Order: sequence, then structure tokens, then C-alpha cells
Amino acid sequence: MADEALFQFLHSEIIQYVNSAESGDSENGRCVSKLESMGFRVGQGLIESRHFSLCRFTKDTPRFKDELDVMKFICKDFWTSVFKKQIDNLRTNHQGIYVLQDNKFRLLTHLSAGKQYLEHAPKFLAFTCGLVRGALSNLGVKSIVTAEVSVMPACKFQVMIQKM
Amino acid sequence: MADEALFQFLHSEIIQYVNSAESGDSENGRCVSKLESMGFRVGQGLIESRHFSLCRFTKDTPRFKDELDVMKFICKDFWTSVFKKQIDNLRTNHQGIYVLQDNKFRLLTHLSAGKQYLEHAPKFLAFTCGLVRGALSNLGVKSIVTAEVSVMPACKFQVMIQKM
Repeated sequence: MADEALFQFLHSEIIQYVNSAESGDSENGRCVSKLESMGFRVGQGLIESRHFSLCRFTKDTPRFKDELDVMKFICKDFWTSVFKKQIDNLRTNHQGIYVLQDNKFRLLTHLSAGKQYLEHAPKFLAFTCGLVRGALSNLGVKSIVTAEVSVMPACKFQVMIQKM
Repeated sequence: MADEALFQFLHSEIIQYVNSAESGDSENGRCVSKLESMGFRVGQGLIESRHFSLCRFTKDTPRFKDELDVMKFICKDFWTSVFKKQIDNLRTNHQGIYVLQDNKFRLLTHLSAGKQYLEHAPKFLAFTCGLVRGALSNLGVKSIVTAEVSVMPACKFQVMIQKM
């Protein structure tokens, strides 16, 4: 499908543009934070969009029986609709921390696997961290989302639920 | 599909961000030009992507017998893959000018139809002008692409072919 390519190209353009617009910032902190905010709003929007509203409200209301159920929705329905695959592994410590592992994260697959690219990884993960945080937020779950890459293109997103 | 929503939300975020990053520019010229360049690179990328390479090279090589044939590809295959619908009307003066009319252009449908929004239209069309120019460029056709809105959400893209 061209959809995937469209998303990937747009994502790259955004990173490139934000990176150059925030170029006064040597630590990349502002760039990463801008990308995260953009992802957050897109994540919120997607959950409100017709596609997910239908998923959630027509089949079996209420859709989510607990927090774990919300996380499963993110790993399956949400991830599939954005990245065309499910999260490969979901772990939790049952105390509000969830680790979502994607063994072949689509937004990293076009980067070379060399170590020199690892330093750029945060820029390529920030939008998605925001996306997950925004989606969860509109599902009533406040969280902090971080990500790390060990071996490209596998990566782990860590979701820390913020209790109200 | 959530894909459409994803593209629309990303597109809005880009406009918003580029607009604020180029805010020193009262005429919006720099903002429009940045958006056009981003669209150009995405359009180029899409034509190179697996989806379109397969379309073009496997069914009947050579795919395009003339310039009009390339334009038809843009109006049908390309437009459908990006905007989930075809161009509604294609006209040409047979002297290198083509007018592509979309009666319900997806990236305008969420804007209100009021006249006060017409002034913002160029920002919402710039990325797509670039997208078409980039796609055509990678199909070997050099062009200048402009757009205008008369009644939202209908709009016309004018493609002027640049003879080599």
C-alpha cells in the first residue's frame, strides 16, 4: 500500500524540518519535544476519528474493562492501523509500567543498522511516543511514554501510567 | 480507514508547525514554499516506492505513451492512493496546461466553508501542489503546479508543463 509510504515520507519530512527549525538547540531536546507534541495531538485525533470511534462504541460498550485492556487495544488495533502490524510483545509489572516491543519498527527500518545511527534514534521515536501518549490520554489514561532502541530496527516503548 | 485520518492530522500538524516556525513572514510566502518543498520530496518518494513501481513496471511496460497518459495516472492511481478518490475532472488545452478538479478535496473538508477561511487555503494546498510536482518530476515531466479554491471544499490544480 502507498499509505505506509506516505506516512513514512511525511514522518521523515517532519523530522528533517523540525530538526532544522530548532537547530539552535544542540542537545536536540527541543526537536524531540516538538515531535512528541505533534504525535500527542495526532494520537488524540486518531482516537476521536470515525474509525476508532466505531471500533470502540459499536461492538461492545463499554469496550475496556481495565487498564490492561486499553493497552491491548493500543498494541493490536491502534498499532495495526498506524504501523500495519501488531506490537510483538507486551509486558507489564502490574504496577503501572508496560513495555511494548516492536521487533521491526516501521519508522526505523529505513535507517541503517549501524551504531552511528543509534544517536539519531530519539528523533525517530519521539513522534510515536507522543502518538501513544495522546491515544492513551483520550482513552482516559494519563501516561509518560519513552522509547529505546537496542538493535535496529527493534525497539521498546515504555509506558508509565500516571495515577490520578 | 484510520490511514486517511492519520494523513490529515499529520498534514494539519505540519501546516501549524511550519506556519509558526516561519512566523516572521507576514505574507506566508515562506510557509507555503516550505510546504511545497516537503510535498515535492514526498511526491518523488511515493513514485519511487514499491507500490507505484509495481503499478508502473509490471503490468504493461512502457506504461505511459504520452504526457496525457501520465496526467491520467496522476488523476486516477496516484490521487486514489493518497486521497482515496479520483480527480473528478481533467481538462487540457493540449498545449501543456492541465486542470485537475477535485470537487471534494480531502485536505479542505475539515475547514469551514466560510469566506474567512479562503485566505488560509494556499497553506492547505501547498503540500499537494508539491506532491503533484514531485510525482510528475520523477515520471520525467517537469512542471509548475498551482491551486485555487472557488467554493470549499472544491479545488482546482493547474499543471503547466515545462518543456525541456
